[in-house]
Amino acid sequence: MTADKDPVTGGVMPARGVSRRTRLDSWVDRYATRTHGMTASEIRALFAVASRPEVVSLAGGMPSIDGLPLASVADSVSRLLATRGASALQYGSGQGDPVLREQICTVMALEGIQAHPDDVVVTVGSQQGLDLVTRIFCDPGDTVVCEAPSYVGALGVFRAYESAVVHVEMDDAGLVPEALRHALASAAARRAPVKFVYSVPTYHNPAGVTLTAQRRTEVLDICAEFDVLLVEDNPYGLLGFTGEPMRAMRADESERVVYLGSFSKTFAPGLRVGWVLAPHAVREKLVLAQESATLCPPTMSQAVVSTYLAEHDWCGQIKAFRELYRERRDTMLAALTEHLPAPVRWTRPDGGFYVWVQLPEGLDAQAMLPRAVTARVAYVPGTAFYADGLGSRHLRLSYCYPTPERIREGVRRLAGVIAAEVELRETFGASLPPGAGAQHTYERPGPDQS
Amino acid sequence: MTADKDPVTGGVMPARGVSRRTRLDSWVDRYATRTHGMTASEIRALFAVASRPEVVSLAGGMPSIDGLPLASVADSVSRLLATRGASALQYGSGQGDPVLREQICTVMALEGIQAHPDDVVVTVGSQQGLDLVTRIFCDPGDTVVCEAPSYVGALGVFRAYESAVVHVEMDDAGLVPEALRHALASAAARRAPVKFVYSVPTYHNPAGVTLTAQRRTEVLDICAEFDVLLVEDNPYGLLGFTGEPMRAMRADESERVVYLGSFSKTFAPGLRVGWVLAPHAVREKLVLAQESATLCPPTMSQAVVSTYLAEHDWCGQIKAFRELYRERRDTMLAALTEHLPAPVRWTRPDGGFYVWVQLPEGLDAQAMLPRAVTARVAYVPGTAFYADGLGSRHLRLSYCYPTPERIREGVRRLAGVIAAEVELRETFGASLPPGAGAQHTYERPGPDQS
Repeated sequence: MTADKDPVTGGVMPARGVSRRTRLDSWVDRYATRTHGMTASEIRALFAVASRPEVVSLAGGMPSIDGLPLASVADSVSRLLATRGASALQYGSGQGDPVLREQICTVMALEGIQAHPDDVVVTVGSQQGLDLVTRIFCDPGDTVVCEAPSYVGALGVFRAYESAVVHVEMDDAGLVPEALRHALASAAARRAPVKFVYSVPTYHNPAGVTLTAQRRTEVLDICAEFDVLLVEDNPYGLLGFTGEPMRAMRADESERVVYLGSFSKTFAPGLRVGWVLAPHAVREKLVLAQESATLCPPTMSQAVVSTYLAEHDWCGQIKAFRELYRERRDTMLAALTEHLPAPVRWTRPDGGFYVWVQLPEGLDAQAMLPRAVTARVAYVPGTAFYADGLGSRHLRLSYCYPTPERIREGVRRLAGVIAAEVELRETFGASLPPGAGAQHTYERPGPDQS
Repeated sequence: MTADKDPVTGGVMPARGVSRRTRLDSWVDRYATRTHGMTASEIRALFAVASRPEVVSLAGGMPSIDGLPLASVADSVSRLLATRGASALQYGSGQGDPVLREQICTVMALEGIQAHPDDVVVTVGSQQGLDLVTRIFCDPGDTVVCEAPSYVGALGVFRAYESAVVHVEMDDAGLVPEALRHALASAAARRAPVKFVYSVPTYHNPAGVTLTAQRRTEVLDICAEFDVLLVEDNPYGLLGFTGEPMRAMRADESERVVYLGSFSKTFAPGLRVGWVLAPHAVREKLVLAQESATLCPPTMSQAVVSTYLAEHDWCGQIKAFRELYRERRDTMLAALTEHLPAPVRWTRPDGGFYVWVQLPEGLDAQAMLPRAVTARVAYVPGTAFYADGLGSRHLRLSYCYPTPERIREGVRRLAGVIAAEVELRETFGASLPPGAGAQHTYERPGPDQS
């Protein structure tokens, strides 16, 4: 059984081309309209190749969980099953375990959030949180405003609910407030119903930038001015490389912010335990949506997380993760500086998993990907992070999973690929097909993220 | 923290009335149209009371998992985490673990199904399977045809996707083929797009009846005649009380049937591991929908199920469950015969969890529920199982969770409540408000399920 890695999650993808049955889809005229927007990425087949061990993948977003105290977690879980197995394996609350919801409030307190466990809904990873939030708010054609670029999984959800996505530019200080104001005013003028602003303000995926404290206030003020909800997606908030955790936007505004949290990066993604903290009335709708979607989130996973938080030094573990990722970030930035020539630019993340790279003018990251894979390095082309087909001059590199040694080697290979592309373009110039990589424009000049 | 039991799953419900904040919903004008259909059941508050230990709940659908070999499961899981924890806790495939999908095919083979693991998608319980199937097929206003009555969780999903539900009558032999033909012909005449027929053919929830082998063929033929997909929901198929497992409808038709399976009743619901077996092209859409909904189903839960199937006598455990539930079914039927007077009728299930009771004319199960709870017995009123408000003369009793002693006591209490209702009605007759319990009519005479 071939285990192909998903380009985004790094998870195992279904084997391709192994089915003996090649047939037309006899139900093709029966699908819902939303289903026509669900298409497998064109780069998926390529990533099947990229998952070979000789390829350095700087594409995946898998956390590096080898450092978890697995033997000790195994002991806790064993004791949990032996002593409370009948409840840990039984149906639970649609809202999630009350004890875990209290613990989640303790976790969020690290980011300055004061919350009541009643306002927390446990979800099947924060991906499902995003799905449920979009489900309760978005009719087809409704508008969601989000950063440019934006988390590919969020764009997939918005597409699945047939939402219209309006991208707003970012720079090194995160979402540009004036651009947000402009986008919301423009939507209001068009009478386009903006259901929420979706943002990853801290250690952005894929851009690697963080919204400054001052801008957080401005963004919240703008949301208030336009009476729009803000969805703060914060899976990386505790994985900063310097000082105290960044104060969450939800810490300063409880009635206008829906906060998405996750244990996928601070503990383990395979449990699929995330949460939504929402204003009370919204929370009630989310619970009803959760019951319809799954009856209840996995009880066993919740019990494992709850036990882990109660019995292990989870803060110490997060500190260990931070150090691990900081070393890898440092390695990647040093390798980029060493190997990549001046016209290439990149962001310098203070936390999280990703570096966002801008290629020299004329280069197209998606067109270049097959050559990169041939050179045994993989990344995610920037277009994946835009709903509008832009981003072709960008690519996302992740340093979360590969070892420092592999990171160095991967960047070295990537540099070779880029240099060859630049040379090709310099030699043949305008006779080459025009790169789709022309700089995009939003309502203000494009981002400068290097 | 009060732990209220959900009337349907038996799971813990969010505590009611404990929030100190009573406020209006400032986002009430922002929700999607679908969200207006998501309302908490009126009987929910009542069930908060019904969850008190002195009340015998014949309402919940919780499996009785006390009999699981928890110590030995704990050992397996501990070994799993200690030796393969880094992969069991990591992101996995959106389609589900390949090894588990092979094991699922082995499980389905017990019902005569020959399937390829490629065509299986693992879901967060079969509830999520239903959610994803509806998601990919149903636009708002599309029609789903299902039994009368039908699984309350399915009706919730159809409502969440704004589907129109057409109920088709059942009798003791399950769905009535002629009524199905009539309903499909009628929908075709109205040009209403029927996206699928949803059925629980085996040990029906809530009706407790099973579609006969001959009718299975007829129903499949009718679906072929009208070129409609059949969704076969089969969580109880291996929990029959006599002889070999019933042959699944999917065993005789692979291209027109989407099959939903679950480990919630044969192993443990708290893992939330179910699956969908679908025609190949449909499966591809389901995987994309799953990735959008959760990235991947819980890896850890899948590993636990996979390990359990590999290392434990799961067939022996299912046999033990069958014997346990058969004893409880026998107890309930004997108690019903002993305590309930002639005008009350009920079904006699050959497997599964439920008995469907028809009250004497003029009685209303929902109106009677507060008096039942006062008499310390709870059930689910029949209206929960109809999309159209009918079913008020019926109620569902479950024998899966309470001990035989509690079942006997619960039925005895229920009999007292019904007798008092009958007496009240005989004494005051027509001066009472008319019971909503008038027999409903579909396109043929109503069901006879006693």
